[in-house]
Amino acid sequence: MNSNEKNKSFKSFILITVIQVLSAYYLYRFFFIPPDMPALDTEQWWGPYPMDLDHDKSIRPLTIEFSDVMINDLRERLLHRRPLQPPLENVGFTYGFNPRYLNQVMEYWHNKYNFKEREQFLNQYDHFVTNIQGLDIHFMHIKPKNVAGLEVVPLIMLHGWPGSFREFYDVIPYLTAEQPEQKIAFEIIVPSLPGFGYSQASVRPGLGPAEMAVIINNLMKRIGHDKYYIQGGDLGHTVGSIIATAFPENVLGFHTNFPVLLSHRAALLYITCGSLIPSLIETKELQPRLYPLSEHWSRLIEESGYMHIQATKPETVGVGLSDSPAGLAAYILEKFSTWTNPGNKKAGDGNLLKKFSLNQLLDNLMIYWATNTVTTSMRVYAESFNEKQNFLIFDRIPTNVPTWGIKFKYELMYQPDTALSFKYKEYLQSTVVEDGGHFAAMEYPELMAKDITQAVIKFQKFWNFEKQESNEAPPLHETARTVYEFTVKSINGRDVKLSDYKGNVLLIVNVASQCGLTATNYQQLNELHEKYHQKGLRILAFPCNQFNGQEPGTAKDILNFTKDRGVKFDLFEKVDVNGDNAHPLWKFLKKAQSGTIGDFIKWNFSKFVVDRNGVPVERYAPHVNPLDLEKDLAKYW
Amino acid sequence: MNSNEKNKSFKSFILITVIQVLSAYYLYRFFFIPPDMPALDTEQWWGPYPMDLDHDKSIRPLTIEFSDVMINDLRERLLHRRPLQPPLENVGFTYGFNPRYLNQVMEYWHNKYNFKEREQFLNQYDHFVTNIQGLDIHFMHIKPKNVAGLEVVPLIMLHGWPGSFREFYDVIPYLTAEQPEQKIAFEIIVPSLPGFGYSQASVRPGLGPAEMAVIINNLMKRIGHDKYYIQGGDLGHTVGSIIATAFPENVLGFHTNFPVLLSHRAALLYITCGSLIPSLIETKELQPRLYPLSEHWSRLIEESGYMHIQATKPETVGVGLSDSPAGLAAYILEKFSTWTNPGNKKAGDGNLLKKFSLNQLLDNLMIYWATNTVTTSMRVYAESFNEKQNFLIFDRIPTNVPTWGIKFKYELMYQPDTALSFKYKEYLQSTVVEDGGHFAAMEYPELMAKDITQAVIKFQKFWNFEKQESNEAPPLHETARTVYEFTVKSINGRDVKLSDYKGNVLLIVNVASQCGLTATNYQQLNELHEKYHQKGLRILAFPCNQFNGQEPGTAKDILNFTKDRGVKFDLFEKVDVNGDNAHPLWKFLKKAQSGTIGDFIKWNFSKFVVDRNGVPVERYAPHVNPLDLEKDLAKYW
Repeated sequence: MNSNEKNKSFKSFILITVIQVLSAYYLYRFFFIPPDMPALDTEQWWGPYPMDLDHDKSIRPLTIEFSDVMINDLRERLLHRRPLQPPLENVGFTYGFNPRYLNQVMEYWHNKYNFKEREQFLNQYDHFVTNIQGLDIHFMHIKPKNVAGLEVVPLIMLHGWPGSFREFYDVIPYLTAEQPEQKIAFEIIVPSLPGFGYSQASVRPGLGPAEMAVIINNLMKRIGHDKYYIQGGDLGHTVGSIIATAFPENVLGFHTNFPVLLSHRAALLYITCGSLIPSLIETKELQPRLYPLSEHWSRLIEESGYMHIQATKPETVGVGLSDSPAGLAAYILEKFSTWTNPGNKKAGDGNLLKKFSLNQLLDNLMIYWATNTVTTSMRVYAESFNEKQNFLIFDRIPTNVPTWGIKFKYELMYQPDTALSFKYKEYLQSTVVEDGGHFAAMEYPELMAKDITQAVIKFQKFWNFEKQESNEAPPLHETARTVYEFTVKSINGRDVKLSDYKGNVLLIVNVASQCGLTATNYQQLNELHEKYHQKGLRILAFPCNQFNGQEPGTAKDILNFTKDRGVKFDLFEKVDVNGDNAHPLWKFLKKAQSGTIGDFIKWNFSKFVVDRNGVPVERYAPHVNPLDLEKDLAKYW
Repeated sequence: MNSNEKNKSFKSFILITVIQVLSAYYLYRFFFIPPDMPALDTEQWWGPYPMDLDHDKSIRPLTIEFSDVMINDLRERLLHRRPLQPPLENVGFTYGFNPRYLNQVMEYWHNKYNFKEREQFLNQYDHFVTNIQGLDIHFMHIKPKNVAGLEVVPLIMLHGWPGSFREFYDVIPYLTAEQPEQKIAFEIIVPSLPGFGYSQASVRPGLGPAEMAVIINNLMKRIGHDKYYIQGGDLGHTVGSIIATAFPENVLGFHTNFPVLLSHRAALLYITCGSLIPSLIETKELQPRLYPLSEHWSRLIEESGYMHIQATKPETVGVGLSDSPAGLAAYILEKFSTWTNPGNKKAGDGNLLKKFSLNQLLDNLMIYWATNTVTTSMRVYAESFNEKQNFLIFDRIPTNVPTWGIKFKYELMYQPDTALSFKYKEYLQSTVVEDGGHFAAMEYPELMAKDITQAVIKFQKFWNFEKQESNEAPPLHETARTVYEFTVKSINGRDVKLSDYKGNVLLIVNVASQCGLTATNYQQLNELHEKYHQKGLRILAFPCNQFNGQEPGTAKDILNFTKDRGVKFDLFEKVDVNGDNAHPLWKFLKKAQSGTIGDFIKWNFSKFVVDRNGVPVERYAPHVNPLDLEKDLAKYW
């Protein structure tokens, strides 16, 4: 090779390397970097305008009522329902709800379903409504009776579609039965999600699962619970998961019977790659629940027609269902057959009564019928798959709330724990059940109650682990969920609780006086402070001498240095940021926002952005100048 | 390089070449080789068993009747319809049919729609039923009055979903108006597709679009039309296209207002690649109808929820629609808004009355309501996307039936002519319309009538081109659709009409006595003949001396040669198979089944398989031994 050739060859080498690094970075970003937490307005108004700022915030009792007028009208409709065309020969439920069997269900509803008795049954628990963000939100509230010596554990249980608060009637007695050996007593809250049953629907577009999560969290605060446990499946899982992601400070644990990530790219990539060597990601016994993926997907396609039409035309499909009880029954009860076990399709009666009673099923149906809410309930699909698709974004943001899943054999989707832990950083356990389907609380109430209890005990242990085991608290940086849990020392040696910064956007940075980056950084940090202090930006600077000894001075030296530069932002005591002696806050920051090559801080002037909820949401390397952050920070002002 | 290295290098070269050739071949096959024509049983019985072999084949008159009982029941349901939840604020039709506007439509249906007058209106054309394959099939039959000097042109018009025979009421008067300058008079047949309106539904699974095509073709034969023209859109397009593909001998021309290939791989690849340089495949004016593909697809996803649910759960979604007139109206009329123009979604009334009258729309709805057939009509989606998916396979098989499309601006899908000609080998023309949507016959009846007339005239010219222009027939191999149109000479010099072979599977082969392949081929052809003659296989051998002069002898020589070998299959006169003097049959065979590198015959013992309808369906190269065909032929026995 002559030197010209060498030069060319070197250029090619550089070019190829650059392309490889860039594509690796892009792929890494696409699959592994969580998106920004979508902004949620915790006071968004969903009722009619003008907004009533002083609206009634009281909690009012509610009685479920099946009025005679409604019952007579319903019976008329059932009696005069139009004859259905006979089904194709021997198709069972494979073309949908078998019309021959539907006739039997309608007969029962008309002649045997005891409306007044069922009304009483539904009223066995106390019902309430309270206005949240302009909407009357309904909930059941079951308080434990004998709590002497027991820890009262607040648990919210979130229903799905096409379920309702009725889903939990059979599980509640097991949960509230005295369990002295467990030392806990459940206080249970079961809301109707907005637009469902006795909760009002929004009057304008936009109330999707993330907005429901805000309302539900506000409801729990209204009831008086700042810290609580969540149980949910189906839509209840989605809403619960978003609460655990957006409001981790309020959630002590999340129990889900729909442990599924719908849009977590890395998890889905992992599952897809796993189809090559399934044994790498799932045990032999459980592999058939996931692989071959084609079977998994073809069941999903077969079962997702309702979702497709509800996501695009809820008003259209809703009319026939709110005008015809037979239409509503076929549409909703079909799910209780096919989602409980795909094999049920082959039976002429869909094996409906194998796991459920008609009273159970019709109670749930009555909640949709009596309140005429099937259309409003279906709108949540349109609000999910709208342009924002918030609920899919939240699926990709990790949470440290301890999470526990229960996996029933015939649930619509299955994912291995290793995939779930892409999002649920503290995914504690999965209970694997060799039967059961989508409506687990109604199908296996006792088993569900036991599992929820076990989960809550495990969640408690998770939080108290060190206390219980050795009276020594676990390191705070392991358990903390926000920076507000830390206390630091100001440069003058005064204790500063970071919770004092609640509601501010924080820029936390390790500084040094003798670094090549010092001049630019101090100057631009000052500039940022000037521009955005008013809007809520707080800059927290921690001197650190760990990088080439470029911050050797005392607190006084540092104060003099910064005074000369006109620094007005907050300075703290010199700390270590790397190593065992690193300050717990910095250990926490590094854990929450890991770096590109490793967690450790690379040099002076590493920068962390903490959002208004106290969650570290972004990390910038030392070479990124403070003013470069302006664009990213703009979303907070 | 030492010889070992050379050897390695050569091996790599061979390996890479083999891989390249194989993948090229695989891709070519995947995209460009049409699948085998699915077998269609032209006598399949869809009525209840026992099958009635001597069933009534008469054509009986039918009167559309809106009985008082039905009208009173319907009015009751309209009067007592359940109040709908108010729509979200300012959403128009974007969440589906706006419930506020639905109330107005219901008012009109209840109070202003004149049932008796509309019944008369629908009876203005003569209606009939006749039993085909066990099902009573309804059709309108409009015969021309003054036909002196005019050619009577039979035209079948096929409705879609959620349409009916009502779609064509406005277009028929324009078609049947005397058009003496055109020298044609339309005889119009408008059936209800099986399961729609006044045509019975199958009692068992399996009646999809391809099976409908069989029934419709049998209907036309029953009425007395062996050769006819087809018009169709939506499902009517699909059924019409399958008739033109499976029964080309019966179809003189196909006019479609839904010119779309749903599953033609090469066409879809072509359109996808075209998105890189749209100007290569479509004019600048028309590009926005197709590109960007993402917009095209997102509209399709938005508009295909109904299809997803009907393909998977028609019985489930059908109940509410057959029990509730409001439900049916919302479900069906929404399509007349959004499929006519996507912009209509923004209007509170969906701009429904901008292009249609409520009488028009409710007439169509009444056909579903009075016959209670909405569920049976929706089953065709489940039968389309079942395991066989015949209708998608037919989409990939080319047809030589002349085809003409009319492209309305807001049709749900758009494809350029160059893509359409992948399937429609004689795609004569597209009419481009700068307005209009999916229900063109109702929206633009006059324009549709003119376009159909022009198309039929062009189809006639296509068939008579040479006759009209110069009294000389076009070469038969250009116009023929089956081998039955050819006459050949037996080896004894006798004329043999190939139509004598109707119903047989034919293996046509060019033979020679002195070729390296001779011994194996004659022996194995004999064997095939022995085994499959009984089952309908006929082997037609054409001696040919064009390959290295290996068939130099006279007819007598050849006869002696074959006698020695115990040949019992059919021998014909020596012919040319390549060049201008090639026998027309061979020109036709080569055109119908082109070869891998070029159309020409490569050597002695090239083999063509012709199916029981006379269509060449497969071609095998000389080196493929006759017994190798056994597997492929198995499907015919």
